[in-house]
This record gives sequence, C-alpha cells and structure tokens, in this order.
Amino acid sequence: MNHLLLGSGIALPGEPIDNVRLGEKFGTDPRWVERFIGTRTRHLGVDLDTGKPTHTLVDLAAEAGAAAIADAGLEPADIDLVVLATASPDHLMPASVNLVADRLVMQSVPTYQLQSGCAGAVQALALARRMLDDEHATALVIGGDSCAKHLVLDHDFPALPPSELVNYVIFGDGAGAVVLARSEEESGTRLGPVCNTFVGLGRDPGQVIRWFGAADRDSGEQPVDENYKAIEADVPTLAGEMLTELLDRTGWPAESITHLMPPQLGGRMTEHITAGLLDRFGLTAREISCVADTGNNGNALPFLQLHHTLPLAPGDRALAVAIESSKWIRTGFALEGL
Amino acid sequence: MNHLLLGSGIALPGEPIDNVRLGEKFGTDPRWVERFIGTRTRHLGVDLDTGKPTHTLVDLAAEAGAAAIADAGLEPADIDLVVLATASPDHLMPASVNLVADRLVMQSVPTYQLQSGCAGAVQALALARRMLDDEHATALVIGGDSCAKHLVLDHDFPALPPSELVNYVIFGDGAGAVVLARSEEESGTRLGPVCNTFVGLGRDPGQVIRWFGAADRDSGEQPVDENYKAIEADVPTLAGEMLTELLDRTGWPAESITHLMPPQLGGRMTEHITAGLLDRFGLTAREISCVADTGNNGNALPFLQLHHTLPLAPGDRALAVAIESSKWIRTGFALEGL
Repeated sequence: MNHLLLGSGIALPGEPIDNVRLGEKFGTDPRWVERFIGTRTRHLGVDLDTGKPTHTLVDLAAEAGAAAIADAGLEPADIDLVVLATASPDHLMPASVNLVADRLVMQSVPTYQLQSGCAGAVQALALARRMLDDEHATALVIGGDSCAKHLVLDHDFPALPPSELVNYVIFGDGAGAVVLARSEEESGTRLGPVCNTFVGLGRDPGQVIRWFGAADRDSGEQPVDENYKAIEADVPTLAGEMLTELLDRTGWPAESITHLMPPQLGGRMTEHITAGLLDRFGLTAREISCVADTGNNGNALPFLQLHHTLPLAPGDRALAVAIESSKWIRTGFALEGL
Repeated sequence: MNHLLLGSGIALPGEPIDNVRLGEKFGTDPRWVERFIGTRTRHLGVDLDTGKPTHTLVDLAAEAGAAAIADAGLEPADIDLVVLATASPDHLMPASVNLVADRLVMQSVPTYQLQSGCAGAVQALALARRMLDDEHATALVIGGDSCAKHLVLDHDFPALPPSELVNYVIFGDGAGAVVLARSEEESGTRLGPVCNTFVGLGRDPGQVIRWFGAADRDSGEQPVDENYKAIEADVPTLAGEMLTELLDRTGWPAESITHLMPPQLGGRMTEHITAGLLDRFGLTAREISCVADTGNNGNALPFLQLHHTLPLAPGDRALAVAIESSKWIRTGFALEGL
C-alpha cells in the first residue's frame, strides 16, 4: 500500500506587491529589502490603501483545497479527511478547517486543524497519512496563513522600530493544498518518511506571534517578534540535521536526490541555506523555492513548493526541509516518483 | 497490541469561585446562575480583584501533564509524543505544546497542537493513538483551555447584554491529561474506537470565539458569541447519534455500559442531555460529569471526566461523547477495563 500525492493547488491573494509599492506605503527602502531580505514580491489579503481585508484564511484555504481536488481529478465528495495547518486562524472557534469543509460542501468527514508555523504543513502531512485507513482512503491536506491580519496599516511608519517594520516586508498571505491517498497503485508520486521533532528544549523562541484576547487588546505589545540573529545562526544547522535524518531514513544516496525543497524564510536566507546544503551534502538536486516571489506565507510554503514539484517522474527523488524557529521544530519529508 | 491509558492528571487554577463571588463582581444573580446554567463553581486563571493573570494555558497544561506522567509511574523522558488540544493558546506562535514540552524538560519528541473546542480533546486521543508506532510507544495527551483571557474585567457590567454576561458565568479554566501507550499488556484500561466527524455543513456556528489580531483589536466586537438556542436544540440529537455510532462500532450491548461521560456544556444542559440518553438507550451506566463544579473549560473537560473514571475495573465499559457546537463536530470514544 502506497501513500500517493494525487494533486495540488495553491491560492495567492490579489496581485503580487513589489518592494516599490511597499516602500510607498511603509517607507521601507526597496533596495534594502531586495538586498537583505531577498523578497521581490508577496501577496496580501488586505487592500493596502483602504485597510479592508480582501481574503480571509478560509477563503485562501478553500480556494487552494478546491484546486487540489480538481487537480487530482476528484470531487469534494471523494474526500474522506481534511487537515489544515495554520498559525493564523480566522477565529479561535470555530476552527477554520470546519469553515473550509463547509465551503467545499463536505459533510461527515473527520477534520483536524494544527496550530503551528511552517512546521505545521509537514505535521499535517504526517497526521493525514496516519489517519488514512480502510474507511478513509483520501485526504485533503492544506497549509495556509493570513498574516495581513497582524499588520496595523495606520501606524506612524517612520516611527516604528526596525524590528517591527521588517515584519511588513517579509511576510505574505497564501495557501496550498495536496490530495493524499492510500492506494494500491504502483505509479505516481509516493510520500516517503515524514519527520517532525521538537528540538527547542531550553532555547528561546525565535518567533512569537501574540494574539490579543479581549483582556490584553490594549497591552501595546508588538504583535510579532522575530529573533533574526537566532534564526540566522540556528536554521542552517537544523536544516543540515534534518537532511541527514531524511537520507538516513530513506537510505537514498545524496547523489540520487533530484529535487530539494529547502526552508523558506526569506529569499536571501533561503539562498544561503540552500548553497550550504548543496555544498555540504554534495547534492546536485534542483532547488524548489518560492519565497522570493510569495513572501513568507508560513504554512503555505511547503505546499507551494510541492505544487512546483509534482508530479515526480519515475525515479525522481525529492527531499523537503522546513524549520520552525518559533520554539524550534525540525521537520522534513521525502517523495519519490514511482 | 492494545492502546492503554496508563495514568491521568488535572490542573484547576486557584480556589473554586462560587456564584455569590461572581455576583459580587459581575452583578449576576447567583440563584439564576444556579437554576438556569447549573454551574456551582469554576476556576479562573486570573485574579478577579486585580485582573492579573495567575495561570496561563501552558502553566495548566504542564501541571496536568506532569501529574499524568507521575500517575502512570513514568518520567518525562519516557514520553515519545506530545499532543495538546486547545481553543485558547497562549500565543499563535510558538504553539503552546512546545512550551509545555520545554517546561516538562522533553527534547526530540514530535509535538502536535490541535485547534478546536471540546471536540479537540477527542481528536487529540485519535491523533495520539494513530501516531504511536514501533518507535513511539508512549504519548502524553493534554486538553486545556484558558478562557479567562477572553474576559474583560473592567467592563461596566450592568450595561452588558445578557448574551455577553452569560460568558462570565459559564466558562472556566483548566487542563487535563492522560498517558496513552501502545502495549502488549493484557490488563489495564484499553482505548477503543475514537470517532471525530464534522457535521456542520450549511449549519450556522453555535459558538464563535474571535481573536484579535493587531488590525482588529479595536473592532468593538464581542469576543465570544454563543447561540444557546441552537446548542439546546441540536446537542441532544447529536449526542444520541454519537452514542448510536459508538454502540455500533464497539458491538457492546447498551446494558453492558458501566460508565457514561456525557457532553459537558453547563450543569443544567448536561443533566438534561444525560437524562435523555439514559432513557432513550436504556442505559444503567454511572454518569461521570464535572462541569457543575469546574465550569466549561473546553478541551479540559473530557480529560477531567477521564480522570474521574480511570482506571476501569476488568469488564467495565465506558462511552464518552463530546459535541462541539462551534461549527458542529460530533466526537466520542470508548474504553474498557481489561
């Protein structure tokens, strides 16, 4: 019995927003963003002029999910299980996954929503695979984030600290999805080992996204904190550990890997990490990255990368690595073309 | 191979707060609360006088988790997997489960956090069971909620609409946990079928908990909405469907059920639903409820009920039902004493 990826879909809100447009709005220097963050464009589910939301997480997740189901040649009624990973649900309750199921006109399916950063996308694949059984053959697995809701658009931007301003240029919104099926087919793209390990014992969070309950709405705290120094120092090491574990668990020689999906933090960081991994492991794999064009849209990223990778040709082998810096989670997975 | 519940633990913050004390603070009529909600006491992770938080979700989840591990006669190093279900994480990132793992001094474990109402507790049991394998024999499964963060304590309470005021008397904070192990032991409390089904297609949410990103902190929206009429109308029916499914999947005759863990919405609703279930199915089972003393603390509730049920004596059979009204999820599970 194989676990096959039958199709994929993505949803990115509106037109890509470039660094010049961001500069007009937030006063950020387009050349600095290009050089130090390395992100050229991103999509946001908010109208930058009016501040009005244009796309919720449920909008994006349902659009990506519908696209993945269609790509697999299936109907929503063929889906037996829905898993959504996100760090930015539309509400605390109902869980957004249930609003997505409603939007896609599904009934009587088990639903699960994982709260996580981009590790969540990999956790969702792991969960979906284990939940598939004789009664539940086909899962819709979605990852997405809607970061725009963290952005306060009427700030006095020139007065913002750089630590807060950088959040306005690094993030983006989006969702991606795949259909994963338990199948006796011997051809297609097979999902191999999926790894998910907490490695944050005693280590300070590299990223904190606060949410504001009614009681602390007026705390004045910054909604998002990133410790870029810790991220820069630790993510390459953790990515190397993950790749070692994946090679070990698959038994695949490094030279047989045809596709590498590296961590997507920002364009520049991803370039740096990928170069290090290719060099250290002697990989000749093709890099599949998207963050320079989509911004960091969290749980969407591994699914966007998958969308650019699928289907694998027979003999192709792909390894994916996602590192969550919030409290340090090391995740990854392997795929092969049958 | 059996899945055995090896131990359980709970955490309830501070002293129980009775209806007279709530009345002094919020102007609610203690007799009305007693009669129509049926909740006598609840625990809150906030000092009602100062408004200062006393217990976070991570505090409660770690305390319950540590107690469950000790009750199982294990050490944190024996735990191979941690699953937390909650509707009220302390942050959006890091996921609270990772801060719990850190607090319990765990490293290199897979962690999962489910975003859900009280269905989440059952989903967490389902997920943990499926994730246990040859390499991961023992899971810590935690459910908890910290509702106090939704309560604004400096409101002009006499001016609040009853729909908002009722949220100040029905909810509570707390966490509960169990240790679930894959085992060849033939004695102990065995976890039977676990069911989790979305049944909310086309049905309005019965409960909404908003969170406030920076962008909508000042929206003036009520943080929690409950549609008590829909809950009262639909939960008894869904609970009956769940019990039918559990009896069907286990093949156990109704008269052999020794313990019933009914949905815990509020003392009065739970009384009403339990009476209906006992009557309809001809059950002579002992009811295990706690909500009248703990308040509705969401994902903690099924674990608090488990804590009062475990261990089962050989031959005992327990059925548990939890219905999430947010977007309508029907969940339940079965246990038997071996």
